[in-house]
Amino acid sequence: MFAIGDVVFGQGDPVIIAGPCAIENREQYFAVAQEVKRRGVRVLRGGAYKPRTSPNAFQGLREEGLELIREVKNATGLLIVTEAMDTDTLDAVCEVCDIIQIGTRNMANYSLLKKVGKTGKPVLLKRGFMATIQEFVQAAEYLVKEGNHRILLCERGIRTFETETRNTLDLSAVPLLRMLTTHPVIVDPSHSTGRGDLVIPMTRAALAAGADGVMIEVHPNPRKALCDGVQSLDFAAFGELMDEVNRLLPYLRRDGRP
Amino acid sequence: MFAIGDVVFGQGDPVIIAGPCAIENREQYFAVAQEVKRRGVRVLRGGAYKPRTSPNAFQGLREEGLELIREVKNATGLLIVTEAMDTDTLDAVCEVCDIIQIGTRNMANYSLLKKVGKTGKPVLLKRGFMATIQEFVQAAEYLVKEGNHRILLCERGIRTFETETRNTLDLSAVPLLRMLTTHPVIVDPSHSTGRGDLVIPMTRAALAAGADGVMIEVHPNPRKALCDGVQSLDFAAFGELMDEVNRLLPYLRRDGRP
Amino acid sequence: MFAIGDVVFGQGDPVIIAGPCAIENREQYFAVAQEVKRRGVRVLRGGAYKPRTSPNAFQGLREEGLELIREVKNATGLLIVTEAMDTDTLDAVCEVCDIIQIGTRNMANYSLLKKVGKTGKPVLLKRGFMATIQEFVQAAEYLVKEGNHRILLCERGIRTFETETRNTLDLSAVPLLRMLTTHPVIVDPSHSTGRGDLVIPMTRAALAAGADGVMIEVHPNPRKALCDGVQSLDFAAFGELMDEVNRLLPYLRRDGRP
Amino acid sequence: MFAIGDVVFGQGDPVIIAGPCAIENREQYFAVAQEVKRRGVRVLRGGAYKPRTSPNAFQGLREEGLELIREVKNATGLLIVTEAMDTDTLDAVCEVCDIIQIGTRNMANYSLLKKVGKTGKPVLLKRGFMATIQEFVQAAEYLVKEGNHRILLCERGIRTFETETRNTLDLSAVPLLRMLTTHPVIVDPSHSTGRGDLVIPMTRAALAAGADGVMIEVHPNPRKALCDGVQSLDFAAFGELMDEVNRLLPYLRRDGRP
Repeated sequence: MFAIGDVVFGQGDPVIIAGPCAIENREQYFAVAQEVKRRGVRVLRGGAYKPRTSPNAFQGLREEGLELIREVKNATGLLIVTEAMDTDTLDAVCEVCDIIQIGTRNMANYSLLKKVGKTGKPVLLKRGFMATIQEFVQAAEYLVKEGNHRILLCERGIRTFETETRNTLDLSAVPLLRMLTTHPVIVDPSHSTGRGDLVIPMTRAALAAGADGVMIEVHPNPRKALCDGVQSLDFAAFGELMDEVNRLLPYLRRDGRP
Repeated sequence: MFAIGDVVFGQGDPVIIAGPCAIENREQYFAVAQEVKRRGVRVLRGGAYKPRTSPNAFQGLREEGLELIREVKNATGLLIVTEAMDTDTLDAVCEVCDIIQIGTRNMANYSLLKKVGKTGKPVLLKRGFMATIQEFVQAAEYLVKEGNHRILLCERGIRTFETETRNTLDLSAVPLLRMLTTHPVIVDPSHSTGRGDLVIPMTRAALAAGADGVMIEVHPNPRKALCDGVQSLDFAAFGELMDEVNRLLPYLRRDGRP
Repeated sequence: MFAIGDVVFGQGDPVIIAGPCAIENREQYFAVAQEVKRRGVRVLRGGAYKPRTSPNAFQGLREEGLELIREVKNATGLLIVTEAMDTDTLDAVCEVCDIIQIGTRNMANYSLLKKVGKTGKPVLLKRGFMATIQEFVQAAEYLVKEGNHRILLCERGIRTFETETRNTLDLSAVPLLRMLTTHPVIVDPSHSTGRGDLVIPMTRAALAAGADGVMIEVHPNPRKALCDGVQSLDFAAFGELMDEVNRLLPYLRRDGRP
Repeated sequence: MFAIGDVVFGQGDPVIIAGPCAIENREQYFAVAQEVKRRGVRVLRGGAYKPRTSPNAFQGLREEGLELIREVKNATGLLIVTEAMDTDTLDAVCEVCDIIQIGTRNMANYSLLKKVGKTGKPVLLKRGFMATIQEFVQAAEYLVKEGNHRILLCERGIRTFETETRNTLDLSAVPLLRMLTTHPVIVDPSHSTGRGDLVIPMTRAALAAGADGVMIEVHPNPRKALCDGVQSLDFAAFGELMDEVNRLLPYLRRDGRP
């Protein structure tokens, strides 16, 4: 359990993290930030640097994206989580964000983990999509060893033979990680399923399994997103999701953590 | 949606199916049956024929097990679900049970599926642990093609690289199967995780994901079970599970199906 | 090591098994049989009963196929391997074939294995595409336990996340199975890769890994095949494959088994 | 096809790369270098920086290892391949090696790939154990895009459900990569299988499948290795492997590339 400002992770109500996959431009990022804030969200996601399978795909707004993060943070007061892809840009990312995200492809990038551990910043560490739970726990140890204990472990799906979903969301990881570590556990139903139509039921399932939070992709117009639109919720669907979360809260609340 | 007696599958409250993995002897089977009935369960599981990886492992009580099923059914009035492993014993299994279970290794045993379809009995069809959702749906078509529409689709975990759990419970399959078919969807958190300590959180997650029921292994003394003891709940843990389910019911009830 | 007639499995030169995936009609089956015989093949494959994912796909010529097998066997003197899908048709299949094939979906159909073991006929047991090597070895034990020791273990690929091939051919299984058992090991490069353009290099690799034989799909016109055409070799490509095998023989021959 | 000095990759005889997993000390590294050179090897592997799952495992000799590489290179004239784990140590690694190795965990470390591409040094790029062939090919594009075309693609096994081997060596990748790219293809039978007793048959299979080379772990005393000893060959076993390779050469030689 730890807090950043008045947002508490790992105790009390689950934390909803929401925002676009990639920051595309000022209008898109501000629109999402204001909408999710209006719905009660206090932590905003959104990537300036995007690791992409192909060198020819959109790689993020990069420095321009960091500048937009700074503006949105000032304008809304939302906590910011954004990805640091490498050691070169780590300092610049650190300056603008409240939580450094380590992406699924970098979970076993131990050189990066060591440096991120040294920053002292809270970290949202995504599980490698081909990493066992034991490997995931050991990756977090790279951060702990540098003295950084403010870690959010994020289950985001593993690669399997199933093709109906992008990856297979492994919700058994939620209670397992809570047995094996003391770090709060976040679930990303958007990247794991890769389908907007599964995000709401998988959010319900994640919270019922005991997750300390979820991370949701939201976009004003998912069909026009530069990245991962098919799994993003539009504002109406995100409203439904928040209604579901609110309906579930009394059940989850019975003892602090379910 | 369909009903067997007054037990409705696919509408209203989720159905809890419980019982031992294998029927081991009269005392064990009756004890479990009475305990789960006392806790509100109306459908009893328990195998007389057990497909085992090794020919030298316990293969079930077989005919003697069927006779015990008959006795327990008469004594308790519980609905019975039990596995038919092959066409030779299918008729005998049909005589004593209310729902024929097709195990994970037989999901693609199309000759068996055709005969089971012809019996007209309700079927609980387990997903092959290496079957895609599309293959699972098509396996059910083998039953439908014979005129049998009373099918429960049971997600029971898929084989992945993760070794902390026996299989990876694929809860995304729950909303997907409900989009793709009209069959009620049951989740088996016992076989999928292979760990008793994950059964309660995964039951919560399954129901929150929209499952129409769960199937739970219960044993008076899991450590002495002849088969799969490590994942069975003892009576105390099963009591906790039922308390959780009952606490969750008002949330699930909002619209018939969540 | 065992022999059927003068064909020796598990010692000396590797055995090439070839033929169509499914027997489609007299012309197709005879044409393939004569062509592969002309190229030196002495064991003919070809299915009369086909387990298919969808109940609406071509299910094989069935009894008519068995009749064609009888005719081809008489006309050519080739040894016949064909699949038995279930216990109902097992006797009829046994009557016409020299080697009973158990398909990948039936590797864990223990009821069928027991009956096949009792027939005393040689068996080509395909690895389940979801089976570990240990499970594969134990499935063969079901046959051995009934007194049947004439078993060919067939590696045919396992299901993984890779999508460029239908399955991932696991050639490490070849030396492993030879360490763990005394049964000859056959490799099926056609079904595993699902691509005709990989069959020749994977045949070379299988034999170099120590396989006692390979099983190859051949079709007069792969693009018109009713089943699995994309992975079948036409006559010209099969000729190339046999040339490769013959070139490799001196290397393989150094000590009976490489 | 490209050459470094008089070692040609992608044409003519396959290239055998051999050496220890990790450089442990002067004696061990020199002993292996001299032995493999004596057996005809011209490219020496051996890591100074080791990415390890646990932060508490041996992380390599690091700078001291680079110094030993320099000495061995001067003393033996062998070409050196060694891993660059991160951008911080990339320059130092580049100074002492002839080929930069990018490890399996870094295949999708696109920031590192871009910098490695800019060095202009030949690269041995290992397939991520979780990467599809398409993703592997696209990772190489990150190097090509920086103007670096001297790339060796190294198949080193993928993660599957099989537990008898550490990973599943995917030899179908060899012909596939040769169809999809012009880069030479190397196979690592040591890391993929994780078992010394499978290295020789899998080397044979890899070369027969058309690999342009193999990379083999050799250690004077595998049981005392600090890292991956179970899969290393001792000098006697490595001698056998070289004998096998030499016996196979005439078969492989028929047309430049098999």
